[in-house]
Amino acid sequence: MSSTPPSRSFGTVGVVRTHVVRLELPPGGYVLDNGARLTEIDVAYETYGRRSASDDNVVFVCHALSGSAHAAGQHEPADPAEPAWWDEMIGPGRGIDTSHYHVICANILGGCKGTTGPASAAPDTGKPYGSRFPDLTVGDVVGVHRLLLLQLGIRRLAAVVGGSFGGMQVLEWAIRFPGMVARCIIIASCAGLTAQALAFDIVGRKAIQFDPDWQNGDYYGTGKAPVKGLSLARKVGHITYLSREIMAEKFGRERWTAEDVTPGTADGESRVNKFQVQTYLEHQGEKFTQRFDANSYLKITRAMDEYDAAARHGSLEAACARIEAKVLVVAASSDWLFPPEQSTEITNAMVRAGKAVSYCLLTAPYGHDAFLVDVEHLPDVIRAFLPWVERPSTVVPGEQHASDAAAPAVLDSEDRREYQIITRMVRPGSRVLDLGCGSGTLLTMLAREKQTRGVGVEIDVRQVIDVIERGHEVLQADIDGGLAMIPDGSYDYAILSETLQVVRKPRLVLGEMLRVAKEGIVSFPNFANWRHRASLWLTGRMPKNKGLPFEWYDTPNIHLFTYEDFVELCRVDGIRILDVEFLTDDLVGKALVGLGAGNLGANSVLVRVTRDGREGGA
Amino acid sequence: MSSTPPSRSFGTVGVVRTHVVRLELPPGGYVLDNGARLTEIDVAYETYGRRSASDDNVVFVCHALSGSAHAAGQHEPADPAEPAWWDEMIGPGRGIDTSHYHVICANILGGCKGTTGPASAAPDTGKPYGSRFPDLTVGDVVGVHRLLLLQLGIRRLAAVVGGSFGGMQVLEWAIRFPGMVARCIIIASCAGLTAQALAFDIVGRKAIQFDPDWQNGDYYGTGKAPVKGLSLARKVGHITYLSREIMAEKFGRERWTAEDVTPGTADGESRVNKFQVQTYLEHQGEKFTQRFDANSYLKITRAMDEYDAAARHGSLEAACARIEAKVLVVAASSDWLFPPEQSTEITNAMVRAGKAVSYCLLTAPYGHDAFLVDVEHLPDVIRAFLPWVERPSTVVPGEQHASDAAAPAVLDSEDRREYQIITRMVRPGSRVLDLGCGSGTLLTMLAREKQTRGVGVEIDVRQVIDVIERGHEVLQADIDGGLAMIPDGSYDYAILSETLQVVRKPRLVLGEMLRVAKEGIVSFPNFANWRHRASLWLTGRMPKNKGLPFEWYDTPNIHLFTYEDFVELCRVDGIRILDVEFLTDDLVGKALVGLGAGNLGANSVLVRVTRDGREGGA
Repeated sequence: MSSTPPSRSFGTVGVVRTHVVRLELPPGGYVLDNGARLTEIDVAYETYGRRSASDDNVVFVCHALSGSAHAAGQHEPADPAEPAWWDEMIGPGRGIDTSHYHVICANILGGCKGTTGPASAAPDTGKPYGSRFPDLTVGDVVGVHRLLLLQLGIRRLAAVVGGSFGGMQVLEWAIRFPGMVARCIIIASCAGLTAQALAFDIVGRKAIQFDPDWQNGDYYGTGKAPVKGLSLARKVGHITYLSREIMAEKFGRERWTAEDVTPGTADGESRVNKFQVQTYLEHQGEKFTQRFDANSYLKITRAMDEYDAAARHGSLEAACARIEAKVLVVAASSDWLFPPEQSTEITNAMVRAGKAVSYCLLTAPYGHDAFLVDVEHLPDVIRAFLPWVERPSTVVPGEQHASDAAAPAVLDSEDRREYQIITRMVRPGSRVLDLGCGSGTLLTMLAREKQTRGVGVEIDVRQVIDVIERGHEVLQADIDGGLAMIPDGSYDYAILSETLQVVRKPRLVLGEMLRVAKEGIVSFPNFANWRHRASLWLTGRMPKNKGLPFEWYDTPNIHLFTYEDFVELCRVDGIRILDVEFLTDDLVGKALVGLGAGNLGANSVLVRVTRDGREGGA
Repeated sequence: MSSTPPSRSFGTVGVVRTHVVRLELPPGGYVLDNGARLTEIDVAYETYGRRSASDDNVVFVCHALSGSAHAAGQHEPADPAEPAWWDEMIGPGRGIDTSHYHVICANILGGCKGTTGPASAAPDTGKPYGSRFPDLTVGDVVGVHRLLLLQLGIRRLAAVVGGSFGGMQVLEWAIRFPGMVARCIIIASCAGLTAQALAFDIVGRKAIQFDPDWQNGDYYGTGKAPVKGLSLARKVGHITYLSREIMAEKFGRERWTAEDVTPGTADGESRVNKFQVQTYLEHQGEKFTQRFDANSYLKITRAMDEYDAAARHGSLEAACARIEAKVLVVAASSDWLFPPEQSTEITNAMVRAGKAVSYCLLTAPYGHDAFLVDVEHLPDVIRAFLPWVERPSTVVPGEQHASDAAAPAVLDSEDRREYQIITRMVRPGSRVLDLGCGSGTLLTMLAREKQTRGVGVEIDVRQVIDVIERGHEVLQADIDGGLAMIPDGSYDYAILSETLQVVRKPRLVLGEMLRVAKEGIVSFPNFANWRHRASLWLTGRMPKNKGLPFEWYDTPNIHLFTYEDFVELCRVDGIRILDVEFLTDDLVGKALVGLGAGNLGANSVLVRVTRDGREGGA
């Protein structure tokens, strides 16, 4: 599944036009979070894909700091200074598939791309607001977009999607207008900037404010603008958007030589011997001053800095408790401006609030820019999370996905037998955590046959995408890192299938399982199986057979143990064994198990356990 | 050993005075690397500790970007704007122990702390150089310091020590003047900035140059100076000096409240509601403009950016081939401006050039600032590397250290027996790599009894410090990460004592051993020992006894195998076993080994191996 790579050709949503609409505001105007009022607001927006008759296919895309409504397609005439900023993601067959969805992207309040901002004419004077433009919040930005959508007759969104500052808007959408959003995708974002990110913004703004041409914000019509300050701010920004690794790869310590530049041109000559990273920054800085307004930069970065999703509600968990949407949080491994820890912070708050959330960590060297450039799995994970038609926002046990039919699980007979036993052990309608869930086959089986609500934990991103596509929640994580994000007693069952022997700290994992779930269901290879014993006893070699198929030097099974060893650990740690199934694949083993010698006969063992003192039966 | 923490009281080197000396230059002046000449150079320096009669105890300390000659002690009258920048490291009993060493620190060329720089009067005009001051290189800086030392009658340095930009100077000292330096300590530094670090410097300089008060560098005497630009540059710098983690811890998203500030003061009121990180940056920026010259900042950061130790010699390895000093490279784990990879780059070049180098990675949350603030192990590692008196710079096999007598190795009888067998196997005078060398006991035994030149690899920093103190080279590294830094055939023997079973990829480690060394000496527990076999066979439990003392769930032995398994891997991988010693600790085992049943009798096994096709006998 998710096997078709997105097309790389441009312009598949065709030629688009930016619309500008004047909002119908209530009398007295639009009241901002800080109490200021705007009596006139224009909003620039674009749409891609056909809107369904029932309005159930609308996806709203939130742009980042320097974006615009022009997310996809081509303008006519084409404007090279303003290319579509997410063209690779939006289009037929792409991550946000315009064959199915009606996509809307609008410029934000305070911006300079058609929506009202500091450079717009104030209605009272007819002259640009300049220093009079009020301070904004992320909530103000989202509120204006909501008014736009209502004016367009849209009362519910199939999804809201955005990265970076756009992701903050998505989070605020979900918290502020919970009834209006079915699904949210928050990419490379956070619930509040780190001190380091704040610091870079503070420096960037200071660079603009130090520029004498800024004139305290009232530079419009003076023939001067703080281009030096704005270009400095943008240079700082661009350093933070790339990872150290990608900067090393793109530029290293390379310099321009006379052969690299056009001879005889002043621009060319001036580059010779400069570091390539210098001319890159200069180019980015200069380009930005031609297409962006310094006051917008100040207002938007202030709103970004001030954003703290937790603040209004006491804690991020309390804020997330308001959310009704299914949420997908995506982080990029090398993003140091909005680092993955901040995405897991949102994820963990959602988990603690008992909300539906999936988390996916994409391995990408690009830094924060990852969400805008070609990341291997980003379109796939978005496509997997966005079903073709809107479904109810609450999780439906056993929700049927197209992909289930398209790619039926291929199980070998032993896995199937084990899954059947587990399915038998689990009570209908219970909450299940599958640790090391693979592509979600067991979760799907449990959902179908026992109507469970299942959450998976899995480290492999391709499997994570499969689990999402099957409609389950999944957290991309290394089980060995612990389950700290999950509150005590969140699940009826935690399942650990053939995994205990590969983790680094099996005792810790077992303890964590029984902290987050009332019962654990664990299967593991039994090293005391008669064939393993005989192999070691008779040949003096480590056993290698169907049950333990690896060579000693490349086995993932780094903690070998027997059923009796497991029983002893349970005794020591106060764990009660409620059920045991001895699994065998040979006649001798079956006979031994039949004679009560499970530890000798079993090839692998499946147990259901609970903490001593807890009731049996989830 | 290394157990005494450095004293935390200040001023232990007492009251010091900065001397300023005019260099005696050759006719025509001092020729810089770019061909420019300076006909008059003053150098400011300080000294701490008594100079020995034979001048064999001189340690030269190189300061970083914004440092000065005032590295330790107190000035009288005290100048709060210029506190001693490394007072915690230099003093009696401290990392650089002034009870034994005569320490010299001098302000760098181009600086603004007493040594000739852009603000100094040019001899031809009597007015400040300003824009006329030439561009500098790190080599120019080091060359001027060398002239100072020669003028002071010092022809050889026991050590040169420095961090950050100071570390670049240390590296250049070792490359440019190899005969003059016995030991080098390069801390949190590099052989050339990363593209990211270049980018930050480029932005910082641009901030100064954009400031109208900079006046193209000729601002002296105009009553104006580019303080806004310089403060911006310093703010950017300070962000890069701290790690994201420490910024989060120090500032987070905290703001000043009315309770935090002095009421009624304009400064106090202005801070209310500001992020604490903002006032921190503002304070750092402002403070810096009061004590530093913008033109010096431009010249020094240019020299830093342009530094590329490899450039003059074709490669870093070729540059390192010139070095005669013993080198210690120290990195800080959370330093992202001069990241640990850059320290290992220097280390690896030294290894490839066959030079004496040790590498130590300090775990510290402080970021690049780690080397200036209180880092747990930095004084210890420096003290361990700096013997009390200068020794020859070449490695003397079996070099005796005070610490060897002070802390004789405590070995249990089995380790001792194993080490004795290994020592017997090793040919006199050979080169030995001890993988997982612990505190260097075996290396010391081999050096004493077989006059080997030994290098250790060890992951634990306290053990690394012990190995350094014993006078061996050591590389702090995880063996599982591979031995990529070591060229083929660098050693006669690679030793892996009781470690193969704890690494994640034993086959890879074995292969790497026999790539970097002609022979490998490997010891490991034998899982086929009769007691282990009997335990599993009879009790159905994993063996736990003296040879395998851990519970299955917390054992570090993640790859159990038998002697016969090892033999089979050798057969598959083309490894020849030259010697086998079966070690036992019981009578049954001894009897079995005596009967030729080594795989049944041996508790552990020690083998000497080589690649098939190679001659036996290193």
